[in-house]
Order: sequence, then structure tokens, then C-alpha cells
Amino acid sequence: MNDYRHLEQLSRGQALELLSSVPIGRLVFTHQALPAIRPVNHLVEGESIIVRTSSGTTITTVAGRNGTVVAFEADTIDVARQVGWSVIVVGTARLLDDQAAAERYRSLLKPWLSGPMDDVITIAADIVTGYLMVPGEHAASTTDAEQGKRP
Amino acid sequence: MNDYRHLEQLSRGQALELLSSVPIGRLVFTHQALPAIRPVNHLVEGESIIVRTSSGTTITTVAGRNGTVVAFEADTIDVARQVGWSVIVVGTARLLDDQAAAERYRSLLKPWLSGPMDDVITIAADIVTGYLMVPGEHAASTTDAEQGKRP
Repeated sequence: MNDYRHLEQLSRGQALELLSSVPIGRLVFTHQALPAIRPVNHLVEGESIIVRTSSGTTITTVAGRNGTVVAFEADTIDVARQVGWSVIVVGTARLLDDQAAAERYRSLLKPWLSGPMDDVITIAADIVTGYLMVPGEHAASTTDAEQGKRP
Repeated sequence: MNDYRHLEQLSRGQALELLSSVPIGRLVFTHQALPAIRPVNHLVEGESIIVRTSSGTTITTVAGRNGTVVAFEADTIDVARQVGWSVIVVGTARLLDDQAAAERYRSLLKPWLSGPMDDVITIAADIVTGYLMVPGEHAASTTDAEQGKRP
């Protein structure tokens, strides 16, 4: 008998949909040979994650360097029920230099913090992994339904 | 006038206290030259972050390699009120080989997932940074309205 939660893999589409359902994620990159992580708000458009940041910050100068490989993670975990999901995207980042596109994203992504937040970074969703934390045997029906949807 | 939220630096003590107030964080490490991140449950003991993991997983073989520098992040962000905190620890990880200590941590950290979760990784809190997102000078209701209008 096993009552523990287990992980169930999400399809790419399901994962990106969940990612777009929350306003906050965490941008993960390497800075001075050390792992770095920053919570940011984001949106998902097509196969890209869009984040807005401030010129001159570590995020812009490091993660915004064209071609840098970064990770982006978001999750929603219900601590009381111990269920939830986590999605991780790994892909190349670039600082958007198309000013019309940047302006459009600035209107969609509201900054949370004071100061200029004029830079827009796009992350190509090259690798998308996601999983659901699902209950054990007692929720077998849900699990079967989810599995039926998998590619 | 500045109605936006801003960041306020936390002391090391405050940051570790907030980190210990939540059961879940995110372990950040480098895997095959790419940034990797995994949600895990954790506890804070003194100057260390303790996570429990499963033998043979990427976390154990990569982040658990003695001396690997990893990051660990936790946050609590109130999306509606746009306030919250984030704490980031950077430090060296090691796989605990003291079996008595590992057993004690196993009894304190309940695994969420099925399967053996026998490995215990400790992360020395070498660098601790944390911040509070705090409202600006005006009330939250005003700020929300102002933010919506920002170009």
C-alpha cells in the first residue's frame, strides 16, 4: 500500500498552460560561476516566456545576454493537501531590441517594483518539463484521466 | 511620488527565519552545464538547509556531490496584494554520511513522494540574501490603480 503522492509528467502543452496561469516564476541563471535565482513576474506567449526587468541589474546583464541559457520555474503547491505542480523551462534568453514589441510587453506586464523596468527579456521554451504531484491510490481515477491525455 | 512596491533587504537572521517558516523551497544547481531547479521540502537547522532526496536522482548525484555550490530559494508572494518576501541561500552542498544524523533528519522531514527518499543533503548557508517586497508610501488600493495606468 502506498498513500504517498507521486509525480506525473505533464505534456509540453499542459506545462506551458500551467506556467501561463500564474503571474510569478523564478529565473535561474549562472552568475560569476554560481547558481542564481530571482523571482520575477512573467507571461507566456506562444513558445516564449517574457519577463520585464530593470536596466543594469544582474538579470539584464547576465540572463539578458543574448544566447545565455537560463531556466525558468513556476509552481503552485498546496502545502496542506500536498498536491500541486511544477514546471521548468530551459532555453536561451535574449534581450528584446524590437522596441515596438518591447513596448507591447511593457503594457502587458505590470512592474511590481519602483524604478525603471524597461528591459524585456524573452526566453525560448526549448525544453519544457513539468509534473503534477498527485495523491496515491485514492485518486486513481484522476491519474488515469490525466494519463490518457499524455502524448 | 512613488507608489510602487520596493524591496527592503533582510538581515541574515530574518532571512533564515523566514526560510524556516515554509516547508518548500527550490534547489538550484548546474546539471550538464545547464541551470537546473527542483522544488523540494526542507528544514533549516542553525546555519544549514536540510533537504531529503532519493538515491540515484539528479539532485543526489549532482547537488549532493560534496562541495558542489548550489542555491536554495524560497518565497511567499501574495499575488493579490503584491507583497511578500524572497530568500536566497548560496552555499556548498554535501551528502550527509553520518547515518545517525541522517536518520534524525528523515524523521523530521516527511517525504511527499513515493519511493525511497533516504538521502539527506545539507547546504551550508554561506551567503544569505533576502528581501521584503513592501508597499510604497500610499495605500495598496491606490497603488493597484496607479500601476494599471503605468505605460
